[in-house]
Amino acid sequence: MRLRGRKGIREALEGQPELVILEPEQFKGRWSEVFGNDRPIHVELGMGKGQFISQLSALNPQINYIGIDMYDELIRRGSEKAQLSREEHGGDLSNLRLVRYNIESIENVFDSRELERIYLNFSDPWPKKKHARRRLTHANFVNKYQEILNENGEIHFKTDSRSLFEFSLNSFADLGLRMRNISLDLHAEELRTDLVMTEYETKFSQKGMPIHRLEVVIGEHVLAEHLEQLKKQM
Amino acid sequence: MRLRGRKGIREALEGQPELVILEPEQFKGRWSEVFGNDRPIHVELGMGKGQFISQLSALNPQINYIGIDMYDELIRRGSEKAQLSREEHGGDLSNLRLVRYNIESIENVFDSRELERIYLNFSDPWPKKKHARRRLTHANFVNKYQEILNENGEIHFKTDSRSLFEFSLNSFADLGLRMRNISLDLHAEELRTDLVMTEYETKFSQKGMPIHRLEVVIGEHVLAEHLEQLKKQM
Repeated sequence: MRLRGRKGIREALEGQPELVILEPEQFKGRWSEVFGNDRPIHVELGMGKGQFISQLSALNPQINYIGIDMYDELIRRGSEKAQLSREEHGGDLSNLRLVRYNIESIENVFDSRELERIYLNFSDPWPKKKHARRRLTHANFVNKYQEILNENGEIHFKTDSRSLFEFSLNSFADLGLRMRNISLDLHAEELRTDLVMTEYETKFSQKGMPIHRLEVVIGEHVLAEHLEQLKKQM
Repeated sequence: MRLRGRKGIREALEGQPELVILEPEQFKGRWSEVFGNDRPIHVELGMGKGQFISQLSALNPQINYIGIDMYDELIRRGSEKAQLSREEHGGDLSNLRLVRYNIESIENVFDSRELERIYLNFSDPWPKKKHARRRLTHANFVNKYQEILNENGEIHFKTDSRSLFEFSLNSFADLGLRMRNISLDLHAEELRTDLVMTEYETKFSQKGMPIHRLEVVIGEHVLAEHLEQLKKQM
């Protein structure tokens, strides 16, 4: 197999403007226009090779999906996966965009309340303490997520890293966010056929390694409910 | 060693009224009188053989401790451990009581806001789904704890059981309670010399099995703080 050089990859990506977005900041606040409809937008931050977002977007045509990662090569692989997922499941690619961007400045790509869901799958655990701020569940990131998620906003997080999961539990708890469906061994519980797995997950699960997962619900409807509960308790 | 029969054990317990309380319901709302002071009261629900509560009460004479379990034999062992702990650390047993009682009816032993802290150490995981209501972190129990804990109230929970910890995380989260210091591998993190270990914990840790731990803060001061945060977000 001939490996294309960097320049070749970039040209290939530029040739798919209907799927690949290399300069996403221009669409901040206008993603509904990009998709041509007002359906909810779900984003995977750090999509890697794109298996998860490709499959999920093929299975749910009523949702708009955006997969983000920062390297051309990952976007290229993602676009291949996306094509394959449609050959497998049918449907078109109109509800999917692959975005090349550095998540650190995610607030420059999405406007306040523009998203309904954020997926964080097997994010880099950055195990050294001095790198804690780079973890995608660090408070600095989560505060940005709270801003760009809408009133039905949720964060769905899974990882094989016990240390990252522990860090994340504390990060969400310390921010006073509501968690639910917390799992310390996702695939041990029951056979769930509705779970779309990432490349990592498939590999790790087959080895019997536990996958940790949780959801955070940060929508205002939950806050309001919570507020009522608290008032009753006071 | 001669094993004493049941009757012998009961007589031995009845002979230590300054330490052992066999009919605790009579003291509901009057535990400060029992201790003869207004110091905070910390309770271990399910103290087992009593190593944890004995050590902790020897180390913290300014706190009143109550260890609870439901079998005479455990109370007897607890009283032995308590004596040994004082021989080791000095001090007297005036800040410790060992109570024989079934935790299911804990609301009959403690009045509203009578306690400052509840320890749950290596509680029975009751792994079968049909026994979920027996788990000491089931909502039915936690609601009772919320009632008997005061405005500085905390629950400190640790277990080696991943399934019980997972259940408990969800139980506390679903009740909207604030968690903190969540650990999925307590003794891996750093050498903490301030941690008093239970019998189970010593054994499991030496085998390298991860201990899970968390704290729940249910005091009103935290609720108030939380309320303010929520208001700002709305």
